[in-house]
Amino acid sequence: MFMALNTRSRGADSAAPTHERHDKHVHDPAARARLAARLLDTATVEAVSDVFRLLGDPTRVRIVDALTHGERCVCDLAALVGLTESAMSHQLRLLRAARLVRVRRAGRQAYYTLDDHHVAGLVYDTRKHVEEGHA
Amino acid sequence: MFMALNTRSRGADSAAPTHERHDKHVHDPAARARLAARLLDTATVEAVSDVFRLLGDPTRVRIVDALTHGERCVCDLAALVGLTESAMSHQLRLLRAARLVRVRRAGRQAYYTLDDHHVAGLVYDTRKHVEEGHA
Repeated sequence: MFMALNTRSRGADSAAPTHERHDKHVHDPAARARLAARLLDTATVEAVSDVFRLLGDPTRVRIVDALTHGERCVCDLAALVGLTESAMSHQLRLLRAARLVRVRRAGRQAYYTLDDHHVAGLVYDTRKHVEEGHA
Repeated sequence: MFMALNTRSRGADSAAPTHERHDKHVHDPAARARLAARLLDTATVEAVSDVFRLLGDPTRVRIVDALTHGERCVCDLAALVGLTESAMSHQLRLLRAARLVRVRRAGRQAYYTLDDHHVAGLVYDTRKHVEEGHA
């Protein structure tokens, strides 16, 4: 789909305006094609939506939120979120498979942290969006 | 659940350590309760997970991605994402209901933009998370 747009646009590109016009309804195929070339590729779109789908669950939002405050053991996370340790372990496996959390093992205990700062940013941005809507 | 933790902790709080220990398995109810008091409330958790759930769809990720590059009419968005204008209008209504996009009408045309900078940040953070995982 993006490939088709790109191919179609090549001939017209030299005649296209140097910036995209947003004020009028232009149907400019060349402008569309230039934008299409800058969009996320299919694999990235799928991976991004997979992450959002996984986080589209109140329990998993609670877990990620708790981990924005630092590393936690499974036991503490289970108590904070109101799950059994077994159910919490299951949720953490899902989050870990998506690399949203990482584990550190010490003896019998498993400690979880967010995998990178982008994950905390995700919850922060969404929270701010929600809060500004209520303001 | 959080209320119960808070209530339970009040008596013990003066005896609790002044910072939370992450290195050992402590089962410290007072430390848990202090963290519980800092977690997102139930309404916010639900609203945040609703936003993630809505974005957990490749088509809607494509729409938001296209809009990170500026305002677009329904017609351009439909062509870029590969939907009919009717299907695109339906998706935009869903995104608008969640305040992820806003509309500007000019004559017969409707132009869409992202509702705030947090929405662009969401896709950016998730994309970076995905890309760093592949690196």
